[in-house]
Amino acid sequence: MPRHPEVSRVVSEMPVGVFSKLAHRISAIEGERYPLHVGDSWMEPMAGARMEDITIADHPRLHTYTSPLGLPELVDTIAARRGVDSDRVLVSAGATGGLGAVASTLLNPGDEVLLLCPFWPLIRGIINLHHGRAVEVDFYDKVQLASDVAAVLDAHRSERTVALYINSPNNPTGRVLPAPIVEAVAEYCRRHDLWIWSDEVYEDYCYLGEVTPIAQLAPERTFAAFSFSKAYAMAGNRCGYVVGPDKASMTMLRRASTHQFFCAPQASQLGALRVLRDGDGWLAEAKTRYQAAGDSAADVLGLPRPAGGTFLFMDVGPHLDERGLHGFLVDCIDRGLILAPGSSCGASYATFVRVCFTSAPPDVVARGVCVLAALTGR
Amino acid sequence: MPRHPEVSRVVSEMPVGVFSKLAHRISAIEGERYPLHVGDSWMEPMAGARMEDITIADHPRLHTYTSPLGLPELVDTIAARRGVDSDRVLVSAGATGGLGAVASTLLNPGDEVLLLCPFWPLIRGIINLHHGRAVEVDFYDKVQLASDVAAVLDAHRSERTVALYINSPNNPTGRVLPAPIVEAVAEYCRRHDLWIWSDEVYEDYCYLGEVTPIAQLAPERTFAAFSFSKAYAMAGNRCGYVVGPDKASMTMLRRASTHQFFCAPQASQLGALRVLRDGDGWLAEAKTRYQAAGDSAADVLGLPRPAGGTFLFMDVGPHLDERGLHGFLVDCIDRGLILAPGSSCGASYATFVRVCFTSAPPDVVARGVCVLAALTGR
Repeated sequence: MPRHPEVSRVVSEMPVGVFSKLAHRISAIEGERYPLHVGDSWMEPMAGARMEDITIADHPRLHTYTSPLGLPELVDTIAARRGVDSDRVLVSAGATGGLGAVASTLLNPGDEVLLLCPFWPLIRGIINLHHGRAVEVDFYDKVQLASDVAAVLDAHRSERTVALYINSPNNPTGRVLPAPIVEAVAEYCRRHDLWIWSDEVYEDYCYLGEVTPIAQLAPERTFAAFSFSKAYAMAGNRCGYVVGPDKASMTMLRRASTHQFFCAPQASQLGALRVLRDGDGWLAEAKTRYQAAGDSAADVLGLPRPAGGTFLFMDVGPHLDERGLHGFLVDCIDRGLILAPGSSCGASYATFVRVCFTSAPPDVVARGVCVLAALTGR
Repeated sequence: MPRHPEVSRVVSEMPVGVFSKLAHRISAIEGERYPLHVGDSWMEPMAGARMEDITIADHPRLHTYTSPLGLPELVDTIAARRGVDSDRVLVSAGATGGLGAVASTLLNPGDEVLLLCPFWPLIRGIINLHHGRAVEVDFYDKVQLASDVAAVLDAHRSERTVALYINSPNNPTGRVLPAPIVEAVAEYCRRHDLWIWSDEVYEDYCYLGEVTPIAQLAPERTFAAFSFSKAYAMAGNRCGYVVGPDKASMTMLRRASTHQFFCAPQASQLGALRVLRDGDGWLAEAKTRYQAAGDSAADVLGLPRPAGGTFLFMDVGPHLDERGLHGFLVDCIDRGLILAPGSSCGASYATFVRVCFTSAPPDVVARGVCVLAALTGR
C-alpha cells in the first residue's frame, strides 16, 4: 500500500475551511474592515510583559529550549495559583497545543468524545486528527435544568465513548454554565468512567454569575486547559497550560506533548510569568472593556448580554436567502465585516454566525456590529 | 469501553524517557555541569533578532495570532530563498511541530515509515504518536555505496510502507550523505510511491563535503522540514517551516497544523524574518565556532571529525561494565557530564552515547569531553 500522492484519511476528509473559500473576497475588502471572526484581542499586553521586555540581560539563554514541562518557576507559580502540586501542571503551546496533547494521550482510534455544542471551532478537528470521533451534543443553547443532563448525554453515549469536552464560559454562546449543571456533568462522567476535557480559557472573563470549574468537582478525571492568550491578550505567544489529575497522568501527557511541540516558547513563558505576578490590574481593565463591548453589541443586535467569554452567537436564519449562510457571509464581507459561520461550532448551527467583540477596538467592533444589525433588519 | 483511568495505547506504550530515570542524579550534580545531552546552542541569537528587539512600536499587535500559514512576509521571504512558490511554504512551531503535522497528514493507523538510523530521538515517537509504525533501517553508519541502498531498504519495506524519513546532515552521526546515496534514496522512493520526510534542520552546518537536498531530486513527494532553532540559535522560539510538493498537499498539511499548534509564535516569526535578511554574518561565525568545537571534541575522543551537524556519536561498548549504558551515563553524571543514550537514536545503538558540541560554550564542552575521554580510557 504505497501512499504518494494520497494523504491520510482523517486529513483528506476534513471539511474545507470556510475562509479558504472566502479568502479572495476578504482580501478584496475596500474601506474599513471589521475582522470579528477570529477570537483575539485588540489590546496590547501589559507593559512589562511584552516581547520587548524580555531581555537577555535579565534572562540569559532565553532563546533556548525549556523543559518540556515548562520553566520550573512558571510551573510553580501556576501550581500555587491553582492550589495544586507542581507535578500536575504542564505548560503547553497554547491551549490548542495542550488540548491536542490531551487528545493524543487519551484517544485510541475510533474512540468517541461527547462534544458539548456549540463548541470552539478547532476542537472537532483536534479530535478527528487524533482518529477519535466527535459526537456532537447540543447543549449550551438547550440544557437549562441539571435534571436533564443525564438524558441528553445518554442519547449520545455509546460503548466507544471515553471522554467529554466542556467549555464554560463557552465559545461561542457566552454562556457560563450554572453550578448544578456542571455538577450533573461531573457526576455523569464519574458514573460512566469518562475523562473530562475542560477548556477554561475564558475563566477570567465572566460578567454575569460565576464560573464553576469542573476540575474541582472531578479532579481525578479532568484535564483542564488554560491559556494566557485570552486572559492576557497574548494569543500570538502560543503559551497555555494544562492541569491534570495526578503525576502519573501528567507523565503520559508529557510523552504526547514532547512529540508534538516539545516545549512552549521560552520568551512566552517568561511573559506569562510576569502577567501572573503583576497582571491583575491589566486584566480588570480588559474585563471592563470587553464587557462594555459585548453588552453594546448585544444591545444593538437584540441579543441577551453575554455572561462570559468574548463572543456573541446569533441565529440569522430568518435573514438568509436561497444562497444560505454562505451568501450571508459574503454580504457581510462586501460591507467589510468578517464573521465565523455557526457550522464551525456544530452541525446544528448552520444558520448562526459568531461575532467576536474583542478582536478589534470597541469603535471598530461597534461599526461592524452595525453592519450585522442592518443586514438582520435591526 | 469507558476509558478513565486508562490512557491511549500509543502513549502508554512509549518508553520511559531515560532522563526521567536520571533526573534526581542530574539535579544532584555539584560543581561544574556539562549539559551535552540536548541539541541546543550556547550562543545568543543575532543582535537585532532577539525578543527584546521585536517591539510593538515596529510591529503593533505582534502578540496576536498570525495566519496558520505564517506571516505572509516571512512566507514570501522563505519561498524566495528556497526558489519555490509561496504556496509551498508553511511556517511551523519548530521543525518538531512541522514534522508532527507531516506525520498527521500522511499516516493512517498502522502505516509504516522507513526510519534511517541512527535518528533524531523525537522522530520515532512522532511516528508512534500518530499511530504509525517506525521501521528502523540502520543506515548512516552502514551504507557507503549507492548501489547498496535499494537492498538495504528492501529488507525493511512492507506493503504498509508509505514514507521514508531522511536527515542529512545527520543527528546524531554528523554524517552528510553524498549525492549518489541521496539520489539512490530518491529513486527508491519514486519507484515505490513513498513519501519522503526530509529533516534538513542542520543544512547550514556542513563542514565537509556538500549537502544534497533530497527535495531537489524528488520535489513531487518530499516534505522538507527546516528550523531557525539550529541555524540561528533560536530553539526556544519554536519556529521552523515546511516546504512541500505543491499547493494541494500544503492545504492538507495546513489542516493538520492548524489543529496541532494553530500558528507559530508571531514574535518568533518576526525574529526569523530578521535573521533571514541579516543573519548571514552571524551564521558564518557560528559555523566557524561550532566546527572548531566539534573538531576538538572529535580529536580528543579519537573520532572522525564531524562532517556536519552539532553532534558526535560514540560507541562506548568496550567501556561498559555489568551495569550497561545506564551505569555509564550515571558515571558521567557523577562527574557533571550529561549525555544522550544511543538507544534513543535507534535500537541498534544501545552502546552509543550522543555528544552535543554546541550546547555549552567551547571551554565547557572541552571539559565535558575530557570527562568522556577519561571514562573511555583516552
